[in-house]
Amino acid sequence: MKACGLIVEYNPFHNGHRYHIEKAKEASKADCMIAIMSGSFLQRGEPAIIDKFHRAKAALEAGVDIVLELPFVYAVQNSDIFANGAVKSLHEIGVNSICFGSESGNISFFLHAYEKYKEKEPFYKETLRKMLDQGLSFPEASRYAYESIGLTANEIDLSQPNNILGYSYVKTILDNQFQVEPLTIKRTKNNYHDEEITNPIASATSIRKEIFTNRRITEKVSITMPEGTNQQLKTYKEKSTTLHEWEGYFPLLHYRVMTMSHEELAGIHGINEGLEYRIKKTAKQATSINEWIEMIKTKRYTRTRLQRIFVHILTNTKKNDIEKLINKTPVPYIRILGITKTGQNYLNMNKKTIDVPLLFRFNRNPHPMMELEENASNAYYSILPPHSRKMLFKQELGSPIIVKE
Amino acid sequence: MKACGLIVEYNPFHNGHRYHIEKAKEASKADCMIAIMSGSFLQRGEPAIIDKFHRAKAALEAGVDIVLELPFVYAVQNSDIFANGAVKSLHEIGVNSICFGSESGNISFFLHAYEKYKEKEPFYKETLRKMLDQGLSFPEASRYAYESIGLTANEIDLSQPNNILGYSYVKTILDNQFQVEPLTIKRTKNNYHDEEITNPIASATSIRKEIFTNRRITEKVSITMPEGTNQQLKTYKEKSTTLHEWEGYFPLLHYRVMTMSHEELAGIHGINEGLEYRIKKTAKQATSINEWIEMIKTKRYTRTRLQRIFVHILTNTKKNDIEKLINKTPVPYIRILGITKTGQNYLNMNKKTIDVPLLFRFNRNPHPMMELEENASNAYYSILPPHSRKMLFKQELGSPIIVKE
Repeated sequence: MKACGLIVEYNPFHNGHRYHIEKAKEASKADCMIAIMSGSFLQRGEPAIIDKFHRAKAALEAGVDIVLELPFVYAVQNSDIFANGAVKSLHEIGVNSICFGSESGNISFFLHAYEKYKEKEPFYKETLRKMLDQGLSFPEASRYAYESIGLTANEIDLSQPNNILGYSYVKTILDNQFQVEPLTIKRTKNNYHDEEITNPIASATSIRKEIFTNRRITEKVSITMPEGTNQQLKTYKEKSTTLHEWEGYFPLLHYRVMTMSHEELAGIHGINEGLEYRIKKTAKQATSINEWIEMIKTKRYTRTRLQRIFVHILTNTKKNDIEKLINKTPVPYIRILGITKTGQNYLNMNKKTIDVPLLFRFNRNPHPMMELEENASNAYYSILPPHSRKMLFKQELGSPIIVKE
Repeated sequence: MKACGLIVEYNPFHNGHRYHIEKAKEASKADCMIAIMSGSFLQRGEPAIIDKFHRAKAALEAGVDIVLELPFVYAVQNSDIFANGAVKSLHEIGVNSICFGSESGNISFFLHAYEKYKEKEPFYKETLRKMLDQGLSFPEASRYAYESIGLTANEIDLSQPNNILGYSYVKTILDNQFQVEPLTIKRTKNNYHDEEITNPIASATSIRKEIFTNRRITEKVSITMPEGTNQQLKTYKEKSTTLHEWEGYFPLLHYRVMTMSHEELAGIHGINEGLEYRIKKTAKQATSINEWIEMIKTKRYTRTRLQRIFVHILTNTKKNDIEKLINKTPVPYIRILGITKTGQNYLNMNKKTIDVPLLFRFNRNPHPMMELEENASNAYYSILPPHSRKMLFKQELGSPIIVKE
């Protein structure tokens, strides 16, 4: 059985994701599609609109065979760390290929970029460091650094969000010499950041915007998603009373910052260079997350970076807890969030060659990474009424979702 | 000018408090009444119903001349530490007497109790330790210990809440050989813990119960308080949108505990003997503060003790922060929350003999105790909508309330 890996967030699962699965299946000729998905919080430092189990279920109903959880320590990080956790996990579970969507759509450009990078790695790194020292954000600095080694946007634009992520996947595969084929599919014309829904394949950003502006799943939004997602959004909202967005966390995050010392704040993952003073000072004035970020952000501390930092404050994730875990190889475990019959067959056939523990139930003892996972879920569900929170948290401790095909 | 000290919480200020001021004035023959009042959180581990400034204003309008803030490090503590902070502050500001309400009403009984205690101090302490080791709560253990040195309830019942506090005041005065005369007034028949309003002098407990049950200031409750208090409750509620009670803090406290490690929880002031495990474990099930306390409480960990611990978790008050400050003599500063013309005259005449700094404005630099005060206020106001919170917190940084007589 051949397996193809996908690296996803499904926030929420929509028609574009289904299109990607179909194309990836064709390109990889795989029998089993394995998606590794962020859990409660996402790469850009945002809470997921509905919890991981409801997102996983929608994905399983739409063509994915196994949904793995990308551990929290990798999920809310820059593209290199994110890619590192995701690609290593997929490699461990034995995928033959990884297929990602990109603005470029041509894998040879990614491979060529990697070649150039390897040739001139020291020079690239020196330029990158210089640009960062000048106060540029990481994406900007790395764009300059790529240009400095002769990689221009004509061939591949490494400032486009999905190209950045894709390049990180390719780099992780090649750096580690994994026997995994990288594949890419050109994204349809809706850009990642598009804010308006214009056709049945819309960006997740525009879908969330439509939902939160109207405070409900409008007809316009429901045609952009498979029926399964519509159902899961509805079910989750009934159980939880809410869909998750940053502003819902403002009272908790604000309370937390207002009762932390500067020293404690400086101990949180991602807070450096005196940022703790800026965060505390602006907290006094802020009346919303958005206003607060506007007050703090600089060229260097972009909105995305600050949102990730806010996630780490909210979840009380300390440098000490996370930094020793990030670069461990191999990943310490693989957690299964949901699975189909095909997925079960795949695991049965391959379990002997999978070297890391497969977790089917949440187990608090085996690894400090699981404690951070639990913390993240605790923070994620904290905005819900007590009874909804208790009910939903039970799933965190239970068995994976099983979907019959 | 003679001054008399009062040790108060005014939660809220009611007719019984006004009666006490009148009687204390008669007994002490003082020209200036100085009250030292708990701030955001109270001795029994509860948030104050309205903030300290609105409570201070009601007191100034009803006969108090100066309202001092009892610092947070002393305020949410057992009676000995509470008394220590309050009596030392009043002594520093130069009061000639301290007048407290008690169930006993006879100061010679308190003085006699102290004499007996001094005679048999080692035996008392040994019995106390033994009883605590057997798992009794502090009030219970100390009752046994007093009985063991021949102090029975016939003379003075040292298990009654106001007798306990009063005895702690007397003990602090005599232990430190302060030139301050202790005076006591018998409390009128409404007991401290009475839950029902039966006449115009009602207990603060019954007043709060009536307010929170009806979600408003009923006629029944308004006759138990001077017009000034009615006005302050109304004004505060308009500004803040709410009156404060424990249940309003459940989402914040619960979120906080759910994202703390056992080690962090064990670092909070008051958490010992593995209580951190019990608090974390019960948090998973609890849907309200009341339910949570019911799950944790034991003979030894009484409701009051747990409420104090909850305040210290909510405010992020660590053992390291507080324990080195509690026993410092003299108190490092005296903060004025509000003052009348008489109070200003008193300070002008006596300022040369007051050895510790008088703070008229909140100043963040001078002392770590002020940082804890700010933290406590931050936590206290955290349940309010952002704009109310910002507006009310400004008062924390501003000048004292001035009331013209």
